Amino acid sequence: MRDPDFAVLGIGNALVDVISSVDDEFITAHDFPRGATTMVDLERAEAVYADLPPAQEISGGSCANTIAGLASFGATVAFIGRVRDDQLGKVYTHDLRSLGVHFDVAPATTGPATGRCLVMVTPDAQRTQCTYLGASTFIGPDDVDPALVARAAVTYLEGYLWDQPPAKDAIRKAAAAARSANRQVALTLSDPFCVDRHRDEFRDLVADEIDVLFANEAEICCLYEVDDFDAALQQVRNHCRVGALTRSEHGSVVIGGEEMHAIDAESVDRLVDTTGAGDQYAAGFLYGLTYGHDLATCGRLGSMAAAEVISHFGARPAVSLAELAERVVR
Amino acid sequence: MRDPDFAVLGIGNALVDVISSVDDEFITAHDFPRGATTMVDLERAEAVYADLPPAQEISGGSCANTIAGLASFGATVAFIGRVRDDQLGKVYTHDLRSLGVHFDVAPATTGPATGRCLVMVTPDAQRTQCTYLGASTFIGPDDVDPALVARAAVTYLEGYLWDQPPAKDAIRKAAAAARSANRQVALTLSDPFCVDRHRDEFRDLVADEIDVLFANEAEICCLYEVDDFDAALQQVRNHCRVGALTRSEHGSVVIGGEEMHAIDAESVDRLVDTTGAGDQYAAGFLYGLTYGHDLATCGRLGSMAAAEVISHFGARPAVSLAELAERVVR
Repeated sequence: MRDPDFAVLGIGNALVDVISSVDDEFITAHDFPRGATTMVDLERAEAVYADLPPAQEISGGSCANTIAGLASFGATVAFIGRVRDDQLGKVYTHDLRSLGVHFDVAPATTGPATGRCLVMVTPDAQRTQCTYLGASTFIGPDDVDPALVARAAVTYLEGYLWDQPPAKDAIRKAAAAARSANRQVALTLSDPFCVDRHRDEFRDLVADEIDVLFANEAEICCLYEVDDFDAALQQVRNHCRVGALTRSEHGSVVIGGEEMHAIDAESVDRLVDTTGAGDQYAAGFLYGLTYGHDLATCGRLGSMAAAEVISHFGARPAVSLAELAERVVR
Repeated sequence: MRDPDFAVLGIGNALVDVISSVDDEFITAHDFPRGATTMVDLERAEAVYADLPPAQEISGGSCANTIAGLASFGATVAFIGRVRDDQLGKVYTHDLRSLGVHFDVAPATTGPATGRCLVMVTPDAQRTQCTYLGASTFIGPDDVDPALVARAAVTYLEGYLWDQPPAKDAIRKAAAAARSANRQVALTLSDPFCVDRHRDEFRDLVADEIDVLFANEAEICCLYEVDDFDAALQQVRNHCRVGALTRSEHGSVVIGGEEMHAIDAESVDRLVDTTGAGDQYAAGFLYGLTYGHDLATCGRLGSMAAAEVISHFGARPAVSLAELAERVVR
């Protein structure tokens, strides 16, 4: 088997984050589930946007945030996702490519605009999201080149893709290509409501196709319909080669075969915006995994990257994670 | 005379800031004058953008930043500037209107895209700017409604407008309308290179039309072609009713008739990005002026607003200036 050209290939929704600070009443008034992501149509997205205070626009998308984090660690990475040939699409493309990410999916020339995610940050630094997928829904099997999948040690998928049938087909094609090239497939469950929408398919996917699973406590409990984190943990052990389960300020639990590690969260001076915590945890973990570190170190790298991103606005690292990593990996 | 409906009406270039952190070598390699603003065409703007690291997009434009600051103080404000009917134009419009700013100039439906300013922040927190005016150059006399000017206590103009002949005509029309309605006109000189390009016209304008002048040390020395701040100060006293001259960490000097006040800069815990310091100083000062405070208080309000904006990325306030002002005005 050839050495991979890329540590990780990500496949996910290409979304520009529109970030603003709101009070708790805003979330209540718009009836959003706090801390979760609601998928909305263009009309609803525009109505919510009109009510929002001034915002800042930063490239986002869960999986792409992880890819950006991996690039910050110095990993070689690629991304598959769809924008339109509009201003936000150009911003999105610039922000990925300027990090050195291999990203060559042609932008759509017709149809909906580049997708966006309204990120509403409440005073407790929690984020509630409202996503209009726009052009990102164009992603389909034709965008997945099996040769590109074969060039990556790990293909990393986001659960949110499950909301679109063509994207689901793209995922199945990518997973099959990875398997036949003897590469690994990683998945993040993305959101408990997303898990709830696709529970059976996710369970089959996790059991049959996934080597490395990322989930937070709410997502993994939702997947196995259990109330208790430990009960969920015992299930994961039977289904995945590696599982990394995050628990916010309580750190994470990493399992792999007979191994199990409890990893502390890294403390932060000032919690500003939790957006991207899970995405950057995955970045640190996958960086460790693809660059030959043991599972406990992978978890610590994840904690470190998550701590960096929650100390500022925006879901991508503001400083070089490669430099920070020197403190963890000696 | 009717009471004004607006404290301040701003007329300026409508620009979206594209903010990124760069090292000193980037500024040198691209041959930009450090700390100043270079006007570029689309081709150059795109070439620079392609070289920039990932960025965040935030609505900007010097005069509009001041208007946004005034809105944060709770002042009633209006703005005249031009965007295109594109994504960045919608973002720009949203960000102003959501602050309560009266902004009803129709976006251009043809021609260049919404203008943008590449803000390059170096490790010393200094910003060097590269501006592609785009649709903002569409501003002309037809955009200035004398009735709107008459409804504002102060019409506030930015020197950058002088780079475009139609905008210059718009300014002259606005100044005449303000005068005939017995309202005041304020001007910021914007940038020493801008002053250098239009020195004679600026001198005439300041002598004949301007009630309140804002300038930093480099700009005011450039206007009067003197090396020494004090020499410039003596000139200003002869020409303007009120002058507010800023000197970065050395504070500001405020003059008006026989009055002269030396105002200290407000200290900040952490200097992050000096973008918008002058714009927010003007916001604080004009808030004080239009809400009946003495000149020394106006200067202190300016220092306070400048200190807030340099403690974070972006040129508009991140917190309520009305709340901060309670510390200054009792």
